Amino acid sequence: MNSLRAYAGRRRVLVDLLIPSIPRPRAVLKRPLGEPIHWRAHVFADGHDLVRAFFRFRKAGTEAWTQVAMHAEPNDEYTLEWNPAEIGLYEIAVSGVIDHFGSWRAGFIKKVNAGEQVDVDLRIGADLIGEAVDRAAGEDAAKLKGWRDFLADNDRDFRQRVEFARSDEVAGLVDRYPAYDLETVIEPVRTLSVERELAICGAWYEYFPRSCADDGHRHGTFDDAAKRLPEIAAMGFDIVYFPPIHPIGVPFRKGKNNSLTPDSDDVGSPWAIGGENGGHKAIHPELGDFESFGRFVEAVKSHGMELALDIAFQCAPDHPYVRENPQWFRWRPDGTVQYAENPPKKYQDILPFDFETTDWENLWAELKSVFDFWIEKGVKIFRVDNPHTKSFIFWEWCIQEIKKVHPEAIFLAEAFTRPKRKYWLGRAGFTQGYTYFTWRNDARVMREYLEELTQTEVADYFWPNFWPNTPDILHEDLQTGNRATFIGRYVLAATLSSNVGIYGPAYEIRDHIPFPGKEEYTNNEKYELKRWNWTAPGNIREEITLVNLARRENPALQRTRNLTFCETDNPYFIAYLKQTPDRTNQILVVVSMDWNWAQMGHITLPLEQMGLGSDREFGVEDLLDSRRTVYRWKGKKNFVRLDPRRSPAHIFRIVL
Amino acid sequence: MNSLRAYAGRRRVLVDLLIPSIPRPRAVLKRPLGEPIHWRAHVFADGHDLVRAFFRFRKAGTEAWTQVAMHAEPNDEYTLEWNPAEIGLYEIAVSGVIDHFGSWRAGFIKKVNAGEQVDVDLRIGADLIGEAVDRAAGEDAAKLKGWRDFLADNDRDFRQRVEFARSDEVAGLVDRYPAYDLETVIEPVRTLSVERELAICGAWYEYFPRSCADDGHRHGTFDDAAKRLPEIAAMGFDIVYFPPIHPIGVPFRKGKNNSLTPDSDDVGSPWAIGGENGGHKAIHPELGDFESFGRFVEAVKSHGMELALDIAFQCAPDHPYVRENPQWFRWRPDGTVQYAENPPKKYQDILPFDFETTDWENLWAELKSVFDFWIEKGVKIFRVDNPHTKSFIFWEWCIQEIKKVHPEAIFLAEAFTRPKRKYWLGRAGFTQGYTYFTWRNDARVMREYLEELTQTEVADYFWPNFWPNTPDILHEDLQTGNRATFIGRYVLAATLSSNVGIYGPAYEIRDHIPFPGKEEYTNNEKYELKRWNWTAPGNIREEITLVNLARRENPALQRTRNLTFCETDNPYFIAYLKQTPDRTNQILVVVSMDWNWAQMGHITLPLEQMGLGSDREFGVEDLLDSRRTVYRWKGKKNFVRLDPRRSPAHIFRIVL
Repeated sequence: MNSLRAYAGRRRVLVDLLIPSIPRPRAVLKRPLGEPIHWRAHVFADGHDLVRAFFRFRKAGTEAWTQVAMHAEPNDEYTLEWNPAEIGLYEIAVSGVIDHFGSWRAGFIKKVNAGEQVDVDLRIGADLIGEAVDRAAGEDAAKLKGWRDFLADNDRDFRQRVEFARSDEVAGLVDRYPAYDLETVIEPVRTLSVERELAICGAWYEYFPRSCADDGHRHGTFDDAAKRLPEIAAMGFDIVYFPPIHPIGVPFRKGKNNSLTPDSDDVGSPWAIGGENGGHKAIHPELGDFESFGRFVEAVKSHGMELALDIAFQCAPDHPYVRENPQWFRWRPDGTVQYAENPPKKYQDILPFDFETTDWENLWAELKSVFDFWIEKGVKIFRVDNPHTKSFIFWEWCIQEIKKVHPEAIFLAEAFTRPKRKYWLGRAGFTQGYTYFTWRNDARVMREYLEELTQTEVADYFWPNFWPNTPDILHEDLQTGNRATFIGRYVLAATLSSNVGIYGPAYEIRDHIPFPGKEEYTNNEKYELKRWNWTAPGNIREEITLVNLARRENPALQRTRNLTFCETDNPYFIAYLKQTPDRTNQILVVVSMDWNWAQMGHITLPLEQMGLGSDREFGVEDLLDSRRTVYRWKGKKNFVRLDPRRSPAHIFRIVL
Repeated sequence: MNSLRAYAGRRRVLVDLLIPSIPRPRAVLKRPLGEPIHWRAHVFADGHDLVRAFFRFRKAGTEAWTQVAMHAEPNDEYTLEWNPAEIGLYEIAVSGVIDHFGSWRAGFIKKVNAGEQVDVDLRIGADLIGEAVDRAAGEDAAKLKGWRDFLADNDRDFRQRVEFARSDEVAGLVDRYPAYDLETVIEPVRTLSVERELAICGAWYEYFPRSCADDGHRHGTFDDAAKRLPEIAAMGFDIVYFPPIHPIGVPFRKGKNNSLTPDSDDVGSPWAIGGENGGHKAIHPELGDFESFGRFVEAVKSHGMELALDIAFQCAPDHPYVRENPQWFRWRPDGTVQYAENPPKKYQDILPFDFETTDWENLWAELKSVFDFWIEKGVKIFRVDNPHTKSFIFWEWCIQEIKKVHPEAIFLAEAFTRPKRKYWLGRAGFTQGYTYFTWRNDARVMREYLEELTQTEVADYFWPNFWPNTPDILHEDLQTGNRATFIGRYVLAATLSSNVGIYGPAYEIRDHIPFPGKEEYTNNEKYELKRWNWTAPGNIREEITLVNLARRENPALQRTRNLTFCETDNPYFIAYLKQTPDRTNQILVVVSMDWNWAQMGHITLPLEQMGLGSDREFGVEDLLDSRRTVYRWKGKKNFVRLDPRRSPAHIFRIVL
């Protein structure tokens, strides 16, 4: 019968579920190195036979599996705690087999204990050991064969044989050679990315090297940008991130404030990539060359940081790809290439790739080679511009292929888009994603959003990176320039999420003038060189430094999922606890999201979860206060008053 | 690159989720005919292009899909309400394509409205219509071609062409020919079983034809059994179900009370199948022959009922299969066949099949042919004995293959086993399953169990059948013989679950003497002929009749998922509401699970869900009371007193 072909009919074991898991081929689950992973599988068969379940893993792209027996739990569950030894993209599976020898042995022991006749059973046991001989090799095979012969030898003492047949020694060796021929393996195989520490915890600092000459006229270079590294490092940042550093196109170049009529000396947008000096694998000549770029990469490292580059897969009209690979673009009947548009808006300086091209294999390969090129140059971290406007399955392939070879690579998805698309990119392999943090502007919606990110399956694949501002986004909250807002939003971003970033120096000097009617900066650095006063009066560098120091010193702030919200009786307050699994480090953050007026109220602590008795006094040390004031608290309800003129937040370390 | 082979790289649409669904190949979701199914899918692509999503279905085993466009909802969701026209096993999928013409048209209209130049855009539109010409045929193709030519004809009036290009007429026809070449289809295809009414709502009555001679000596026949049909039908049952009717094996036959030393005239267990008179396709000669069986099937039908048979895939040692297909059994070194055992217990009268046999294809085919054989004889309902001791994937194949041809077939799984195995069988295709109802003996655990069965995804694939007793199970609750217990347990079973069954006449005459120390009947009919007094004094036939009548008359009782528990202040009370979707029929059941003492308390009604205002008076008519007393109630909290000496329950119909 045809319908039988789909079946491996002799396989009686079912492997029905693996947790944690996303049961889609190639969907990526993420875990940081150093955190044991608790796997749970549902494995069962018909009848009364015992079942064995095995957990297997291998690096993606390799052949051989490493296999570990799982622990049988009640109710057909099997568990395993696995602590991966190194980062990498892994394939994960669970398999199950009927344990014929174990089943036989359990019955045999019961029968012997009940005083039953077991002569035939003993012969069955010997036969089962005989089958194990065929699966074993070397010394073990010889040993098993000897045992089989002994057990089958009717001239030997019956009682001795019975005792030996039921012994742990026999079971132990037979167990090592399960009958894999009727094994069932879960489908599809799951994918797990074990990530390095900087993938799950890092403070990003974005700045434009173009403005580092700081006179607003001369174009900044990598060498100019390097001069800023000591103070960025001193503020406690881990990653410095540059907008695209490639040649900028000339035709349709945008002028200041996104003007369609640029002056001849306008520098254009770094995201309009490519020109006569090359494309995605070239450096904008005004920034420097590969030599100065190499110096810059080394300088970043020497300050204990890493460099992130912006990869934006789009082309200016004079990008070499357009000439060399016209088939990668969509052509209009008038012989021009289709530019980006969101009617009636037109972006004639930007040509998107046509991912429906029949030459998609070469296009994919070329785009992937851009990452490989910069990895070769020492860059392991990429902020990917608008990935949701490029083919989704391209990303799945591209990122996973790169991570097979470079598991240390980190990809931050700049996908400000609808949730299903954003989360899909997380499952495709993006390490981190930008979020809706910016638009969560009161305590209740912020809490709801964080619960979605940390308490649902989303946390298994989407790691947020919270940005209070970007060159594209100056939220209305910040347009007031209020110090408390800038401090408070950074405290929220940097303590709710272990990945955080700002666009500086705009953020720390509280640049806040919007383009009229827009959620954008006026005189945006995207289109012009800026003259920044990096130490403008009223800046919040000290506060940022204190927050980043708290992050460095407190492991509880180095993860995002370990979050518990605390109830409070003031709706402006948002209060949350972050804990290490062993509770040796506990941080309680309280932020008043009223940026203008003093608020007071009570915070209710989950004392039991904190390991505190209700009558025990404890200290809370404010890490956002340079004097590190310690308050004495007791019981679950404690009073807090926050005045934005002094500070919008406490970052309390619990002191026992 | 090798890794590219797994990709259909030009396909930009993702179909990520289909709800309701079990995302495993061949897992069966169930719905009754007549209930619209609300499908929801997540479909999206990169960029700004519009996407179209299609729902498709076909009968399993056929080729051609029927396809319906889904409705776009916010946030990348697409929905469709589908009301299947007939029962059957369906394959279900969702597909998505980029809507190039629709995307173009939306932009074109915006540009026209903004007064932009659209001459090139008009040409692009004409080209897209030209592509649709290639996908269409006949008149439509000719029409599209004419339109394309008109739009591309620069000698024609420009404004007219623009107006026509954006018209609904053009969009409507182009929409009918989507570009399927870059279509994405969800994987795996899902399976849905649309079931007939008797699959989701039926009252089963199990009895042994062997005892229908009613003198305890002469072996009953099908003709004797037929004499009981009028009264079974009068009690309101829908299905009569017989234990196996096949020849019973002679070697190792069990005697009365499961004795290993039978008398020569002992009749043996009907589950020890097969002997010199044949096996699973033969009739036990003492019951009758195919002619009298045929008469019985017709007699059942003439009473408006259907016959269910018990299919038990196991063999007595003298079953013909053992001789003819020794390879289907596991042989012991002493040349005997391995019998069933649960050490140290032995069941030497029962030989299980070895589903690991290399001849599994023939074994599977033969077992399936047993069902086909009895379907041919007019039986469409099967109670399957211990399916969890046979290979799980065999059932998946067998049931789905049968349902492709006989969608009216109903399979009740007698799997008293652990939840994961029980539920897997539901997903494999079993229509119904026995449950843990018998062992849910107080109001709280009963409610918890029903919430699992009705409020979780379990309800999508596991349809319970509640049995207060079976020939194997006489729960301690019933061993007292208390009338209230027998009535109350039937009320619970028959109103909580739309599928219900009893083993009679033991149940209605309150047979309740256990085998000492066991949860089983003494002098069990499984091993001997019984002399039943079908109308013994104190029987509960009238109450069962009232309950079954209430089920027949009230659609709200004909489903299981439509259940809402009501709060009560008496822990012995269990109270629940069942409603039709339009609320024209609402039943409130209150059972006091104290079978001995009167209890009183308040029931809190979900008035809003019932469509009742808090100040509106309404009637509750007790369908369990032959006088059909109507009480006047008002508001959400109402008083109930239940005295088990009168009745342990109310089955209230809400009367507005």
